[in-house]
Amino acid sequence: MKKLRIGIIGMGNMGSDHAKKLINGTITEVELTAVSDMDEMRLTASKTYLPETFGYFTSAEELIDSGLCDAVIIATPHYDHPRLAIQAFSRGLHVLCEKPAGVYTKQVREMNEKAQESGVVFCMMFNQRTNPMYRKMRELVQGGELGAIKRVNWIITDWYRTQAYYDSGSWRATWAGEGGGVLINQCPHNIDLLQWICGMPSKVRAFCHEGKWHDIEVEDDVTAYLEFPNGSTGVFVTTTADLPGTNRLEITLEMGKLVCEHGKLTLHKLSQNERDYCFKSKEGFTNPSVEVSVVPAEGDNSQHMGIIASFAKAILHGTPLIADGEEGIHSLMLSNAMHLSSWIGETVEFPIDEDLYLYELKKRISSSKRK
Amino acid sequence: MKKLRIGIIGMGNMGSDHAKKLINGTITEVELTAVSDMDEMRLTASKTYLPETFGYFTSAEELIDSGLCDAVIIATPHYDHPRLAIQAFSRGLHVLCEKPAGVYTKQVREMNEKAQESGVVFCMMFNQRTNPMYRKMRELVQGGELGAIKRVNWIITDWYRTQAYYDSGSWRATWAGEGGGVLINQCPHNIDLLQWICGMPSKVRAFCHEGKWHDIEVEDDVTAYLEFPNGSTGVFVTTTADLPGTNRLEITLEMGKLVCEHGKLTLHKLSQNERDYCFKSKEGFTNPSVEVSVVPAEGDNSQHMGIIASFAKAILHGTPLIADGEEGIHSLMLSNAMHLSSWIGETVEFPIDEDLYLYELKKRISSSKRK
Repeated sequence: MKKLRIGIIGMGNMGSDHAKKLINGTITEVELTAVSDMDEMRLTASKTYLPETFGYFTSAEELIDSGLCDAVIIATPHYDHPRLAIQAFSRGLHVLCEKPAGVYTKQVREMNEKAQESGVVFCMMFNQRTNPMYRKMRELVQGGELGAIKRVNWIITDWYRTQAYYDSGSWRATWAGEGGGVLINQCPHNIDLLQWICGMPSKVRAFCHEGKWHDIEVEDDVTAYLEFPNGSTGVFVTTTADLPGTNRLEITLEMGKLVCEHGKLTLHKLSQNERDYCFKSKEGFTNPSVEVSVVPAEGDNSQHMGIIASFAKAILHGTPLIADGEEGIHSLMLSNAMHLSSWIGETVEFPIDEDLYLYELKKRISSSKRK
Repeated sequence: MKKLRIGIIGMGNMGSDHAKKLINGTITEVELTAVSDMDEMRLTASKTYLPETFGYFTSAEELIDSGLCDAVIIATPHYDHPRLAIQAFSRGLHVLCEKPAGVYTKQVREMNEKAQESGVVFCMMFNQRTNPMYRKMRELVQGGELGAIKRVNWIITDWYRTQAYYDSGSWRATWAGEGGGVLINQCPHNIDLLQWICGMPSKVRAFCHEGKWHDIEVEDDVTAYLEFPNGSTGVFVTTTADLPGTNRLEITLEMGKLVCEHGKLTLHKLSQNERDYCFKSKEGFTNPSVEVSVVPAEGDNSQHMGIIASFAKAILHGTPLIADGEEGIHSLMLSNAMHLSSWIGETVEFPIDEDLYLYELKKRISSSKRK
């Protein structure tokens, strides 16, 4: 059997986690062959669980040029994702990129162009898409049997972080080091799932509070109001300071309501389409009958390994990816839109003004604590 | 025992409901003595369950001047509340007014002034304040043992109404007839509870959608973002078109979280104040222990009769009201702020510009379907 030879760039929390799993042969079609990190200490640490006869590099460029890898996983801080991905593409390597793809959409658009030019596979690590509950929600919403969406409400406030977390790296929670706070670090998964399940909004008005709960310069508290092309509305609330946090995603549709909370997906299904019922009923206070059920959504919750396996399959067998590089643009544009709306104090329409976003971001970078 | 002689002005749904309960002696200290309605049919209908020797009037003025009543309950359409209340005050009658007190705050301020001048009792029918769960929430939040509020989220979308409901009266859901939609007709209770439990916000940015789900000219879909004086934020979502609707009130505080849903109040209580913990913890991803419990909140849920009884007690014995006339201003200002913010497309600060609100409302009244 042909195996995909993979290298990991960046051996921080995520990179080393992937390495430990891959070296155990978790994915039969993948062979981990090399790792790189600018930090010698991290490389040394990785030698305790990785084979001696292996590619160890202190620069991503050396790993890319080593001839040891057909593909790379990029797990460095966000700002380096685009540059490294483009470098890998130019050498004909396939790329699986940790979220977010970049800090602003212009970069990610360029990444996609370069991947296409090189004819390689560009995949995004949106591992939450492997969660059977979210897969089921998407299937039910996109399948159409519940009719059009009317309202979405996601309270996703279970991203608690202490001040010690933010103090653990000088790049953390700075405009120059990360390009944002909870939206760019913790929430890319949720924002991706939101657009994956419900589609992209057409407008957003967000209220981001910077350094509200922690001694940081970026946002740690966000409330965003969304409008979708079909007129439905939504609310997205997140923070890293609520305890205990909430993770409750509610989607109301013409045929009922889906609620995902406490690891359970509940469907409230109407016997009739509400939109028809509303205008046909002769009574003012009645409603069609409702059937409530817990939707079975067990299946495989393969997370990161599921994404890596599908990445390998796409390269080796041409099967579809769970999240391709284009998907990196959507969620990032939505997150950028929330930042921009809050910065200018106005509703922002999609596609957003990318130049204005970048101008506003650069202003913040120039006065960032970490320059 | 001295009894309070009460008359009811307006024998629609609410008025006739109160009459049926009061005539059965539900409240020992209250004697129902008279009713009035401009509609003869309604008066005739009321004679089937009210005594023959009783005051029946086709005008509120006659009832007020009849000498049969010490106090009146005003249960007419909203726009008439201020005029009738002021008339009753000027004749020395106490007033219990259905919600909302009026359609704009200027009116309600005048009502309060007139009540004070006459030295009579002015009470608001905020009967949801008798719900033990909301009483308990208020006690826990205002009591201070949970620390300061950090976030509020109320999804209150279980006000379903069909088009037939709106078609049942030509005044319904018109600017001229009601002065608003779901905010002024269905939600005054929720808006009152919100400010009663959490205090008044300092800012609001609302998104009201008019005639979105029904053939009406006023709003039937609202999302509002709130900011409170202490910096905490909130979201209030309501509509008359979601099926099945949701009624979920979540309040996050420094010491944990309260969630009121499915007729159950759950407290998630932290062993330490999160604000202290955040800065003292040496770890990035830890949190203090949490104790989850269902808060006993059974007690008496006396609703309208509870308010009427407390109204009588306040007059006869000088005890405090559950909701006095001043309380009619707060919730109405919050509801007016949501309308105004949406109309002008901007964040509105409290106290709101009442003249601007009235100017904008009058524009809508002048082009209302019902003039």
